[in-house]
Amino acid sequence: MNIRLYNARILTMEEGRDLFRGEIWIKNDRIAYVGAIEEIEEEGPGLPHIKWDYELDCENNLLMPGFKNAHTHSGMTFLRSYADDLPLSEWLTKKVFPYEEKLSTGDIYEFTRLAIMEYVTSGITSIFDMYLSPDAIAEACRDTGMRCVLCGNVNDHTSSPEKMADEYERLNSFNPLITYRLGIHAEYTCSKELIDSVCSVVHRYKAPFYCHLSETRDEVEDCRKRYGLTPARYLDEVGLFEYGGGVFHGVHLTEEEMDILAMRDVSVITNPGSNLKLASGIAPVAKLAEKGINLAIGTDGAASNNALDMFREMYLVSTLSKIRENDAASFDATKVIKMATWGGAQAMGLRDANVLATGKYADIIMIDMHQPNMQPENNIVKNIVYSGSKKNVKMTMIGGKILYAEGRYNIGESPERIYENCNRIAERILA
Amino acid sequence: MNIRLYNARILTMEEGRDLFRGEIWIKNDRIAYVGAIEEIEEEGPGLPHIKWDYELDCENNLLMPGFKNAHTHSGMTFLRSYADDLPLSEWLTKKVFPYEEKLSTGDIYEFTRLAIMEYVTSGITSIFDMYLSPDAIAEACRDTGMRCVLCGNVNDHTSSPEKMADEYERLNSFNPLITYRLGIHAEYTCSKELIDSVCSVVHRYKAPFYCHLSETRDEVEDCRKRYGLTPARYLDEVGLFEYGGGVFHGVHLTEEEMDILAMRDVSVITNPGSNLKLASGIAPVAKLAEKGINLAIGTDGAASNNALDMFREMYLVSTLSKIRENDAASFDATKVIKMATWGGAQAMGLRDANVLATGKYADIIMIDMHQPNMQPENNIVKNIVYSGSKKNVKMTMIGGKILYAEGRYNIGESPERIYENCNRIAERILA
Repeated sequence: MNIRLYNARILTMEEGRDLFRGEIWIKNDRIAYVGAIEEIEEEGPGLPHIKWDYELDCENNLLMPGFKNAHTHSGMTFLRSYADDLPLSEWLTKKVFPYEEKLSTGDIYEFTRLAIMEYVTSGITSIFDMYLSPDAIAEACRDTGMRCVLCGNVNDHTSSPEKMADEYERLNSFNPLITYRLGIHAEYTCSKELIDSVCSVVHRYKAPFYCHLSETRDEVEDCRKRYGLTPARYLDEVGLFEYGGGVFHGVHLTEEEMDILAMRDVSVITNPGSNLKLASGIAPVAKLAEKGINLAIGTDGAASNNALDMFREMYLVSTLSKIRENDAASFDATKVIKMATWGGAQAMGLRDANVLATGKYADIIMIDMHQPNMQPENNIVKNIVYSGSKKNVKMTMIGGKILYAEGRYNIGESPERIYENCNRIAERILA
Repeated sequence: MNIRLYNARILTMEEGRDLFRGEIWIKNDRIAYVGAIEEIEEEGPGLPHIKWDYELDCENNLLMPGFKNAHTHSGMTFLRSYADDLPLSEWLTKKVFPYEEKLSTGDIYEFTRLAIMEYVTSGITSIFDMYLSPDAIAEACRDTGMRCVLCGNVNDHTSSPEKMADEYERLNSFNPLITYRLGIHAEYTCSKELIDSVCSVVHRYKAPFYCHLSETRDEVEDCRKRYGLTPARYLDEVGLFEYGGGVFHGVHLTEEEMDILAMRDVSVITNPGSNLKLASGIAPVAKLAEKGINLAIGTDGAASNNALDMFREMYLVSTLSKIRENDAASFDATKVIKMATWGGAQAMGLRDANVLATGKYADIIMIDMHQPNMQPENNIVKNIVYSGSKKNVKMTMIGGKILYAEGRYNIGESPERIYENCNRIAERILA
């Protein structure tokens, strides 16, 4: 398949490269060429004659790398607007765990498809998904066409180091769209013995490691009581960050923990919407950036957020930093858009999906500039971060396949069928 | 014109009435009938035979009252994404005032039309607009079909009590869509003498009074230094709240000020997005609600927000209250949706646009439930507030006229023409 996207404005997210007018050419699942109009005109008829399978006039809209949702639990869409207005501990023990027990892998497959529909409406082209059944998630992503990094979810109840090692070997070769990374749910859901055996798996594969960390103040205090150490310090002393990785949330990190994460090349994935709604706090993103830590953004699951919308998260990253630091100049849009694309790819190990350039995956979105919230065009990046919405997503392409365009889905199933299935399952589980 | 909206789910926002399935009939600019399916079927052929000019199958989507944007400066769209990442005082003096001086009434008319386009995409059916040229705003609203309450904007530089009194008399009878309310910009932009003469206008018309109040900590401190009183206490002692009214922002109100506002039946209109972005703070909405104060929501202008999107503001009202009060149970979705509809109408004096009922204005929006972020349907109101977006707005009707449906506008001008004009003007002014 040869696809040509022309008459576009392009933001490649390459360091130091401004927005320009031009074209993107795609061969199968990769970008074959990204060029400015002037370059293309200069080359003229010298360019190789390509037979296009599909040519799309972008009507002067913006092409950019798709957003990376670097922390989510897709299957939790079944709890959307059911488990609200509760603090994290009560929310988890009363409204999440009891119902999750009733979920089958088929249920998770279906609710993951629902989440994927929402992702593509919001320009998300890859997800970092930690949930109960990685196989069901992998199948849903393969069947719809979503790029997915699965995250190990070891804890005292629903997974184990052996299961994780098996998933790591199996799922990393399951499908080109899927990779798998080692991880635990969190320090507070794993015994010391369990964490030690996870560590031996990490060292066996010499692989990066991921987990929820420092989401709430209580979690940090409990870890101090248990081990006399903050969570990042404790996990680092065990040896889990030897090969880098990432932590989800990082709301209540100490200065020392930040230094550890920086030294170990561990990314912090912030989830501002979820942290607000559960009243967990506001992550210190400005401080983390100063430390040179790679930052990424996640929606977290629909049970706590409740939307899976990167525009909302991008907006929150910047504006919450301003209120936290009491400084309206804090963390502007250019930093945020980098987190949502390049930073996410870095955190997830998707270095072939970080920018728009020859050889990279064709994970591309088109932002509709012909809408009032994108006008006037004083600053297009600021328009996207401060004023943009999923309504501006005109097209979402993953690996050269258009999954969503002009409000229509191309995910191998009809939307109404997915809604029907999801409502039926939710009624059964939440009855 | 007789319009029938059928096969709908309906949320009238009347006290104590749950969502139901039914129809809404409209005659000219008012609602003629709102009924549940069962009632309609019972009445059967006994119902008067109406010749419909237009019948719309709502496909089981949700009809509800349009949102009231109870504080905005529509014309400030010219500064969108130009004046970002600065604290309020610097933002006002360096990036707002110098450029506003160059704005003509024609410019304001055009940028107000741009804002109106954005409002209708977000389900906003009336606005409370304070800006430099009320006449230009009134014309833009008349020409597009937006319901608008204009707010007096007296200050030491660009308006006066005499001008306001003239506008009050003229613009209240300008067009059925337009009303005008008395107001000043803020205590800190008006001398003592000016405030005293505004007060005599308020008492002459025995009318409610509005102003920006307690937006920043500095503003409150400066007022204390000037008069030895907090701003609400000072304005109340002058006599400005004798006939009720409303204050915009109310971020740093003292307990005593809240009691004054409650006693005087003064609404508080919160602007969470703008307050975040300018790092002004988080308004104490939970406390204000406890005091029995009527609450409403505004987007503020695009120069500070930058989107004019009630979904974002509704989400922020709830989640910021949770983080402010350190309580995930604080201020849930049912309270927020009431603020965005009934509360706004109350604050703006639009008691004929507060709920969907016979005799009320046909200011109605249709929320598309056939989208992934609205599924499953565990709780529709929570879906709207916590997960909804402007993408879910399928139709916006004001006074029986559909201004926006399925991504298309019916506002007397082509969108592309408005974008072109706005970009040309912005280039001229910001050059």
